[in-house]
Amino acid sequence: MEIFLDCLPCVLKQVLEASRMATGKPEIQAKIMEEALGILANYKRYRHSPDIVKDMHHVVKRLADVSDPYKYIKERDIDAANKIQPFLEHYLSQKQNALYWALKIAATGNIIDSAICSNIDIEGSIQTELSKEFSVCDLDIFEEKLKSAKNILIIGDNAGETVFDRVLIKRFSGYKITYAVRSEPIINDATLQDAYDSGLNDYADIITTGCGAPGAILDQCGEKFLSVFYKADIVISKGQGNFEALSDCRRSVFFLLKAKCIMVASRLKVSLNEYVFKYHRTELI
Amino acid sequence: MEIFLDCLPCVLKQVLEASRMATGKPEIQAKIMEEALGILANYKRYRHSPDIVKDMHHVVKRLADVSDPYKYIKERDIDAANKIQPFLEHYLSQKQNALYWALKIAATGNIIDSAICSNIDIEGSIQTELSKEFSVCDLDIFEEKLKSAKNILIIGDNAGETVFDRVLIKRFSGYKITYAVRSEPIINDATLQDAYDSGLNDYADIITTGCGAPGAILDQCGEKFLSVFYKADIVISKGQGNFEALSDCRRSVFFLLKAKCIMVASRLKVSLNEYVFKYHRTELI
Repeated sequence: MEIFLDCLPCVLKQVLEASRMATGKPEIQAKIMEEALGILANYKRYRHSPDIVKDMHHVVKRLADVSDPYKYIKERDIDAANKIQPFLEHYLSQKQNALYWALKIAATGNIIDSAICSNIDIEGSIQTELSKEFSVCDLDIFEEKLKSAKNILIIGDNAGETVFDRVLIKRFSGYKITYAVRSEPIINDATLQDAYDSGLNDYADIITTGCGAPGAILDQCGEKFLSVFYKADIVISKGQGNFEALSDCRRSVFFLLKAKCIMVASRLKVSLNEYVFKYHRTELI
Repeated sequence: MEIFLDCLPCVLKQVLEASRMATGKPEIQAKIMEEALGILANYKRYRHSPDIVKDMHHVVKRLADVSDPYKYIKERDIDAANKIQPFLEHYLSQKQNALYWALKIAATGNIIDSAICSNIDIEGSIQTELSKEFSVCDLDIFEEKLKSAKNILIIGDNAGETVFDRVLIKRFSGYKITYAVRSEPIINDATLQDAYDSGLNDYADIITTGCGAPGAILDQCGEKFLSVFYKADIVISKGQGNFEALSDCRRSVFFLLKAKCIMVASRLKVSLNEYVFKYHRTELI
């Protein structure tokens, strides 16, 4: 998905937030913003939003001299998600269409961060989000694909959400599961350590995309990831960043996400804040 | 008031909105954003937010070849405000502390734009806002100053709001009233034509600040305005833009506004969206 003009103020705001997460020094925050604005002015050189976001957040890490500005946030989110994991399992056990709701749990994991920030009743907040059904759901195609599939690749998104993904992955016993994370810290996206801290290694092979952007930009991904990506019987891509990077890719992908921005929602033909499990039909040529 | 880092994404978003108001051509909108980002990267060269906003919106006007991108919006807002003006007069006639509520009406006029955009019941929406009292109100100082004053300068803000100001100005019979507007179209701020269309010339001398920024930046203002500004017994500065430009000025000013942005609210020590009528005590040296 291309960069829209609406993305520009949005990514700038995100960099400001990251600069404050990375350093308490206003003069460094100001330097970060100046350098980030220089990158943003050249936005046309970038194909995807995750690509320019990566470069802008590199500025944050370099100037603040912090390798992982969201380390604490990610630990907090994984910890909170681990605490409500029994609730998620119980919620799922009460549902008839377990696969649908396991997918819905994995999609809902994306809001753990805002649930923590805005609400003291995290479980109640998650339950409200869980009860919202998918606006687009290609479950029938997914179930059909599962019949002949042997291996599944899940491309992860945020830390914390990773614990919700564990609930989904446990439904896939009998399949070989690979779970891909970012190759380096970027915003609150999951890295190898976050995947281990979320207990995903008990149920999946953990690999990195080889790409440090907040989305799997294929021409920046590593050979190992690309091999798994193109050979997997099923690919589940989680979150907006991966959607932005993979929306035009030349293989079939199931996009599982909450449309938290109006441009992504518009591209998916849903309303803002709706949940989507959408099959991207393009097959390899 | 200095430019805060939080202002940067905000003014960029405002320029995007203006670019879409000025032209339907995406390639021109993109050029506007690129050039505006170049200006924004040099934000440290500017002292106030209204100053950089002026330069960024000059880009909009030049590249879209439109002298007044908000012309329709301003006409719409003045028209809507004129329609509810009898309601405002009636509302005021029922109040005991008429001066307080006349000031409150003038402050509330600032939201006519959003009332129109978000609500089909504009009158109801305005009434809800009107009922919110000032969080800071230096009415006692104002009443004391009025006793010895002969002339009052009001520095206007948005078109539409101008009609609400008329309700206030009618309370000042016996005083010489001067009403200052921007010297050229900038966002939805009032110009001479907008002041006339709002019927302000029946109650006040209309002048321009001589400055085309969305705030009266004194070192860019004209001689005539500066003379009135420094000689006036009372100056009422309306809206955030004028506050940002005048918050450190070396004469006494009553700031009358709704704190619609968190940085202005913080500077005024009020919460977001609260109304303020605050006396700035600095006297001429």
